[in-house]
Amino acid sequence: MNHIAVDMMGGDYAPLEAVKGVAAFFEAYPHAPVHLQLIGNSQQITPLLAGENIPENAFSVIHAEEMIGMHEHPTKALKEKPGSSIATGFRMLAEGTSDAFISAGNTGAMMVGALFSIKTIEGVNRPTIGAYLPREDGSLGLLVDVGLNADCKPENLNQFAQLGALFARHILHFDNPKVGLINLGEEEGKGNLLAQSAYPLLKQNPNFEFVGNVEGRDILTTRADVFVCDGFTGNVILKLAESIYDIVQRRNIHDEHFSRFNFEMYGGVPVLGVSKPVIIGHGISHSIAFKNMIHIAKTMLDTHLTGKIADTFSASA
Amino acid sequence: MNHIAVDMMGGDYAPLEAVKGVAAFFEAYPHAPVHLQLIGNSQQITPLLAGENIPENAFSVIHAEEMIGMHEHPTKALKEKPGSSIATGFRMLAEGTSDAFISAGNTGAMMVGALFSIKTIEGVNRPTIGAYLPREDGSLGLLVDVGLNADCKPENLNQFAQLGALFARHILHFDNPKVGLINLGEEEGKGNLLAQSAYPLLKQNPNFEFVGNVEGRDILTTRADVFVCDGFTGNVILKLAESIYDIVQRRNIHDEHFSRFNFEMYGGVPVLGVSKPVIIGHGISHSIAFKNMIHIAKTMLDTHLTGKIADTFSASA
Repeated sequence: MNHIAVDMMGGDYAPLEAVKGVAAFFEAYPHAPVHLQLIGNSQQITPLLAGENIPENAFSVIHAEEMIGMHEHPTKALKEKPGSSIATGFRMLAEGTSDAFISAGNTGAMMVGALFSIKTIEGVNRPTIGAYLPREDGSLGLLVDVGLNADCKPENLNQFAQLGALFARHILHFDNPKVGLINLGEEEGKGNLLAQSAYPLLKQNPNFEFVGNVEGRDILTTRADVFVCDGFTGNVILKLAESIYDIVQRRNIHDEHFSRFNFEMYGGVPVLGVSKPVIIGHGISHSIAFKNMIHIAKTMLDTHLTGKIADTFSASA
Repeated sequence: MNHIAVDMMGGDYAPLEAVKGVAAFFEAYPHAPVHLQLIGNSQQITPLLAGENIPENAFSVIHAEEMIGMHEHPTKALKEKPGSSIATGFRMLAEGTSDAFISAGNTGAMMVGALFSIKTIEGVNRPTIGAYLPREDGSLGLLVDVGLNADCKPENLNQFAQLGALFARHILHFDNPKVGLINLGEEEGKGNLLAQSAYPLLKQNPNFEFVGNVEGRDILTTRADVFVCDGFTGNVILKLAESIYDIVQRRNIHDEHFSRFNFEMYGGVPVLGVSKPVIIGHGISHSIAFKNMIHIAKTMLDTHLTGKIADTFSASA
């Protein structure tokens, strides 16, 4: 039985939407062999949980006296608020009480926690966070990195590609995910110094199929399944794509494909390269996001993704 | 009377669409005090011109025996094909026969030509190319750099901001254009090393109003009028935004705002920081793009933009 810790206090609509998300998860997967550890202010969340139809032994409430606000300084807040829901979640991960951790709270604190509270998988220089990309055929691509690593070395991009390809294979069900290097032109030799130097590393990496450089216009297509770039570029891409959904909504456009630009549908973004699944949710997460984040964490555990990552990286070391 | 040189052989639909664009320009501005120098294979373009209703003394045909293909190596092609339409255009600019040059041909050759055939304005370290950004209120923002400078130093971004603000003021008619630094977070101190170091330079620059960091989600909004980033990031942003139009078209969505994501409407992108207006068009340019490029070049000449840039840069030196 896997234990997944959920920060019930994180996100703009916590704890109510977190509670609803937990309920929605068990409604969708009533017999899921998973135990949820709901971390938060028990006076607030227990009455809310009582109002939902959740199997009693499927969860336990872990009281956390404090919480880290959305705009607090990550490192400082983690240090000064050891009793916060985020600090508690990472402590439970580190102690082995939990197998995965989910939060829609302070993104920076989640990143810092993932990097420093739990181990990075041996051979991984820098963990990364990815985001889903909706494509017109209904499938999802993966964009890595989307902000954890603003400045990157060529080998970082090569490792993001390898991590992303494993996630795409085991979680997104691509038999042989195609990896593209985001660049300003298609031809080999194009790009900034980083992309130019990363290209030969990706080309020589035997762990995935490299399709070469891809451009901005390819990111929402199936030219690749895993799109690799530094976290600065990836963050700008992700937020630009998210804003398209806002525009579409404001303009009252109803379109099946553009409705999939609602990134909340996908729950959070996985941290890849750390020893246990960590999912970072969007601040504006509603119940569907919490439900989906729990499902992603469960799938990562069921498929033993972190073990597979460890195997691949130890083999390529 | 200004002389604007137009490469009639550049672009996927040249020379026919270039000819139609010239005709469309004179239809829209029949008394424009401008003389167009139409560079290309005269056997091909003269009969096409004869079929259009263009004032006879408004243009002259400059025969060019060769042309540079869309996929030729820029530097090599410019050197080996001195008789090409692009090389001819830059020679005419350099000699002073022409006041501005437009081409939808080989983008790399246009960049190399702009950088090395004509002078960079004194004080400008690196010229830049910008692109328009459609906003929901009907106005256009400006994104700089969109690919001329893949790797940048902080001072480059500061200069792109200054160049972009001048373009926005004089060509896009913003009284006091707001400049935003594209970044992965809003707070000062966020970003990759480049953005972190550029921030204080932009903040201290007295030549424009700096509104701080802007994120991917802000790029299609009015949070800023000039969005500044390195050419790698900008190129990816521009091509991603262009691809939104393709998706909207494929999905048969008719929306006034998204119709403005058709970047062809805006003609080409201006090279800023060189001593004479140079406009680089999209390879797929149709007549409307040629018409608009001629109009942008004319406006840049009418407003003496390069002189104003020279004044500002000599004052801040």
